[in-house]
Amino acid sequence: MADELAGRKLDALVVTAPPNIRYLCGFTGSHGLLVVPAAGEPVLYTDPRYEIQAGEEARCTVKVTKKSLIEAAARDMSRRRSWRRIGFEAGSMRYADYAALRHALPSARSLEPQTDLVEKLRLVKSPAEVETIRRSMAIAAEAYRRVVGSLRPPVRETEVAAELDHQMRQLGAEKPAFETIVLFGERAALPHGKPGPRALSMGDLVLVDLGAVLDGYTSDMTRMAVAGKPTERLRRLYQLVLEAQRAALEQLRPGVAASAVDRAARRSLERHGLADCFVHSTGHGVGLEIHEAPRLGKREKVRLKAGMVVTIEPGIYVEGWGGLRVEDTVVVTSNGYDILTPLGKELTVL
Amino acid sequence: MADELAGRKLDALVVTAPPNIRYLCGFTGSHGLLVVPAAGEPVLYTDPRYEIQAGEEARCTVKVTKKSLIEAAARDMSRRRSWRRIGFEAGSMRYADYAALRHALPSARSLEPQTDLVEKLRLVKSPAEVETIRRSMAIAAEAYRRVVGSLRPPVRETEVAAELDHQMRQLGAEKPAFETIVLFGERAALPHGKPGPRALSMGDLVLVDLGAVLDGYTSDMTRMAVAGKPTERLRRLYQLVLEAQRAALEQLRPGVAASAVDRAARRSLERHGLADCFVHSTGHGVGLEIHEAPRLGKREKVRLKAGMVVTIEPGIYVEGWGGLRVEDTVVVTSNGYDILTPLGKELTVL
Repeated sequence: MADELAGRKLDALVVTAPPNIRYLCGFTGSHGLLVVPAAGEPVLYTDPRYEIQAGEEARCTVKVTKKSLIEAAARDMSRRRSWRRIGFEAGSMRYADYAALRHALPSARSLEPQTDLVEKLRLVKSPAEVETIRRSMAIAAEAYRRVVGSLRPPVRETEVAAELDHQMRQLGAEKPAFETIVLFGERAALPHGKPGPRALSMGDLVLVDLGAVLDGYTSDMTRMAVAGKPTERLRRLYQLVLEAQRAALEQLRPGVAASAVDRAARRSLERHGLADCFVHSTGHGVGLEIHEAPRLGKREKVRLKAGMVVTIEPGIYVEGWGGLRVEDTVVVTSNGYDILTPLGKELTVL
Repeated sequence: MADELAGRKLDALVVTAPPNIRYLCGFTGSHGLLVVPAAGEPVLYTDPRYEIQAGEEARCTVKVTKKSLIEAAARDMSRRRSWRRIGFEAGSMRYADYAALRHALPSARSLEPQTDLVEKLRLVKSPAEVETIRRSMAIAAEAYRRVVGSLRPPVRETEVAAELDHQMRQLGAEKPAFETIVLFGERAALPHGKPGPRALSMGDLVLVDLGAVLDGYTSDMTRMAVAGKPTERLRRLYQLVLEAQRAALEQLRPGVAASAVDRAARRSLERHGLADCFVHSTGHGVGLEIHEAPRLGKREKVRLKAGMVVTIEPGIYVEGWGGLRVEDTVVVTSNGYDILTPLGKELTVL
């Protein structure tokens, strides 16, 4: 962190994004502000509700205030006369907090908007972080296993989503990593659809996209099932999605550009005239946030490193017919990759 | 809304807080920006993932863009030459978005930070909103009824919380309104405690604080139980908390200051030497957000109006012993109040 601040010529950074605060000092409460100096110990500011929790969690000095956290931090920073350039997180700090900070600091201090400073540190996961994501993923996969095999018409999408969430909790998850997606039939064509009252019918596709949160770390997977015998068309399209996923996975190793992974999946589908049906990017980073860097998209130049954790999730969507997606959470290793989703990829026949 | 903009001499308002966007135009997606002109129809900006959903939900013009929503809105606003003063929500807009908006707009346009503009409109609920909150509350109360009566040692706090959440979902809730609180024994002394692995023992207090989300609207209640025969001290203290809650409820009617409601609860506890044990305010508004205006605190001057929905939740907390709180969600009516929490307040004996 000292290197990053020096590289941007900052005397300190005001950290406001909760996942960044958690990453840097361990505090998990929802109301905190962390000041990280270029030299010396960080200080966490929070309110009395979180006093006990901050004392237990934070690996730094904790200051508890009943007043505004911004004002308490500004008062302390004003006293550090050598702090000239103070960075803040432009993508997370609210304008009102920025204005209060600007107002409370002497005008000779410059406030420097920063993007992706802590986020860059979070890109490469430690072995302990990877293991937490692996356990988080195992919970989601086990919930899928417990619930999906026994689905029968006319269960509703919302009922299946509720049961998956319940099983994840029973298995030790804090909560779902995002609103669990369960879509039947032609509704699977919505890449970001929400479960609704739609009841399962024979012949329906079942798309399930879920992840868990464990110790703050998320996971993400998508699997497909079909109620009754799959049609020939479905079998064939499903194989093409699997093939696209395999093509993307095979690109994964240190040094490869994120765009190359996306291109591999896209070209694979293109060969079968399906490129237009693949309407999102191939994947995204997973960690303290369910969507974080690196994005595996067409124009992403970032190069992969060992320890990056990403999803690989090509899909095809046909309005009126349905959609198919297969998604694993994967860690890049020194010579390739390791799939963290402990579940086969065959199309489950219900 | 036209009146509010005129009152603040604004030609338009850029709305970024999701509950405010939902309130003004009906759109429930997580990525949207709404521009409300002083005269004319609002425009909702969103990305292609939400195109279908926005078309179904939004009661206004929808513009879908693959680029930044801020930049799309700025381009359109730049063309409205008569728009000189453009307001934005200072408490929700991120600094980076503010900077992008400032950069994209001609410098003659002034950007005016606003607070509590839409929030003030949301203070008084329509009869339809009150009914939705009532149904949301009924779901949480029914989940409590189904789960709490049958709790037996050594069930864990986390298991009870998971079961309550599951029952709320089964009963039709979208999700819990906040992380359901279940605390046993001395842990009930933490006003914002999180459920943990603590197992129920005979003699333990049980504090349950939960709410549901239904059609976007939240609800909030707290009830108490005890495993085995309550002690004389517990019975007496519980009656005093009930008495404080009744004192606060009796203040509720149009025209009364929020602080007077808080004072009634505080004085009631003070008469028994318990004022120092009541460490939070008496209540808060409930609506599209679980904590919204008005706050019922010591220094809140806002006067109640019919249609405001608030919690009434005095509590006492004794470190090492435990805590007691009773909470209802209540609507202010033309001549008093109506309790929306359909559940008795006796201490449940397990």
